[in-house]
Amino acid sequence: MLKDPDHQVAGHKALGGKLGPLVDDSGRFYKPLQGDERGKKEVAFYTSFSSNIKVPDHISRFFPKFYGTQLVEASDGSSMQPHLVLQDLTFNRVNPSVMDIKIGSRTWAPEAPADYKQKCMKKDRESSSLPLGFRLSGLQIFESGETGFWKPDKKWVQSLPADEVRLLLKKFVSSNTSKAMDSKPDCAFASIVYGGSTGILSQILELKAWFEDQTIYHFYSCSVLLMFEKELASHGKSPRSEIKLIDFAHVYEGRGVIDHNFLGGLCSLIKFISEILTTPEDYATDGLLEDIQSNHNYSANGSV
Amino acid sequence: MLKDPDHQVAGHKALGGKLGPLVDDSGRFYKPLQGDERGKKEVAFYTSFSSNIKVPDHISRFFPKFYGTQLVEASDGSSMQPHLVLQDLTFNRVNPSVMDIKIGSRTWAPEAPADYKQKCMKKDRESSSLPLGFRLSGLQIFESGETGFWKPDKKWVQSLPADEVRLLLKKFVSSNTSKAMDSKPDCAFASIVYGGSTGILSQILELKAWFEDQTIYHFYSCSVLLMFEKELASHGKSPRSEIKLIDFAHVYEGRGVIDHNFLGGLCSLIKFISEILTTPEDYATDGLLEDIQSNHNYSANGSV
Repeated sequence: MLKDPDHQVAGHKALGGKLGPLVDDSGRFYKPLQGDERGKKEVAFYTSFSSNIKVPDHISRFFPKFYGTQLVEASDGSSMQPHLVLQDLTFNRVNPSVMDIKIGSRTWAPEAPADYKQKCMKKDRESSSLPLGFRLSGLQIFESGETGFWKPDKKWVQSLPADEVRLLLKKFVSSNTSKAMDSKPDCAFASIVYGGSTGILSQILELKAWFEDQTIYHFYSCSVLLMFEKELASHGKSPRSEIKLIDFAHVYEGRGVIDHNFLGGLCSLIKFISEILTTPEDYATDGLLEDIQSNHNYSANGSV
Repeated sequence: MLKDPDHQVAGHKALGGKLGPLVDDSGRFYKPLQGDERGKKEVAFYTSFSSNIKVPDHISRFFPKFYGTQLVEASDGSSMQPHLVLQDLTFNRVNPSVMDIKIGSRTWAPEAPADYKQKCMKKDRESSSLPLGFRLSGLQIFESGETGFWKPDKKWVQSLPADEVRLLLKKFVSSNTSKAMDSKPDCAFASIVYGGSTGILSQILELKAWFEDQTIYHFYSCSVLLMFEKELASHGKSPRSEIKLIDFAHVYEGRGVIDHNFLGGLCSLIKFISEILTTPEDYATDGLLEDIQSNHNYSANGSV
């Protein structure tokens, strides 16, 4: 009854002896508990968060529902293992385009163990986390029933510079998606997916407002997931644009201080997405692209 | 005609052979150019910034006016040395209370030299920069004509934990200031200095809005200076509350990305100051203080 999830774009998978997550046919997602401190921390977070009356409903909707922990047969069929039981975020979705964005220029807490910090620092430096305040962790973009999904290599995606990240965020909401990076994305679905009062930007702005205020939790190495269904958008329907936060194995107590690391990264992502909505001329005409870009390129005149 | 400034609370001073800044009697501040890359970078920043038409007036007012560079006799009288000529920010102020707050959990740019990064990382870790997103660099609080200023040791100030930083931000706007940290600050001037449409919080929020959008500059190791005159406040007059940004030896090009490190730190400071304005009961009654604090202490119930 349990099977591998169809639309996982980042995170651990069943591979080479490692356990992967599973889903059932009633909308539940089973995430194997990491044996070390991380598994314990993630359970502790979900337990604390799901019973925390200080988190308003318009914020808790951005988190997967939590159904406790359960022993289930592991993905490799070997034995019964403890799993977190969560909401399957792509349940009932048809061919969702999904982007996993790890937020924060720093993926480690000041109080984390020294060797773990060192490992993270290296990854943050070698990815776009340090310069951009976030990194793309993985993505799948639906192309067509015939060609299926474009799912680029995660290693490649994580270390892209700002301009390529911008291009992928455009490609994500374009109709002329091709597997290569050479075509100019038309951003045909930008306004319906990113824009509007129920669009992705609006949801991220709600989350941002909470992060400006909340001092309960600090979220390190946590991702925001962007999802929508391109086929619905193509038929003039609501594409069911949605954001969710995932991965809470490195959540620490806020101790009265806001999560400035997460908030800064989220604001950086907001700026990237806002620009796609506010500068449509960037992709209006192929020939004019270079000219228009140089007019919009702040850093060109702002050399220090 | 040039003399040592009266109200410097942080930064290099004339001491043990090192050159310090000087002021004249017409409102100019002479900052000796650091001989290495830093001096060059700070001149380059002021030159770029002062001629950048993309910076709106309501933002450029938060920066010291720039009058070029000039050879003047050094503070030790030894020789003519190149100096930045800037606006003297405390010119015409009487007994100003001043706080220098270095913004950002990270005081180094990703592209800075490796040895410089190492040095900064150590300082960020050992100060409150890493946990709070900012650190107090120095301060002076005017007490009275008789006792003058309270100017605590900079080393001590820089590494204070969140609760003590909160206490100092309260003490800064209190009438019952004493040199010790044991008295409960009355926050008598909080609403007139921090609050209101022309107060410090309102100014920082304007700056924040710019940082959410601007991708021209990244400001590392830059400080926001808070200033006001307590004697004016005591006499029911406007205390001339003002913020200024200073120290631009580590400004880098933004290259189309917002300064998420500075912005995150600034939002953290905003939260500290907002709380002082919105939870007056914290200092209303001595006896009730502990009870009230435990009701307002998010982290107590939000344990992870």
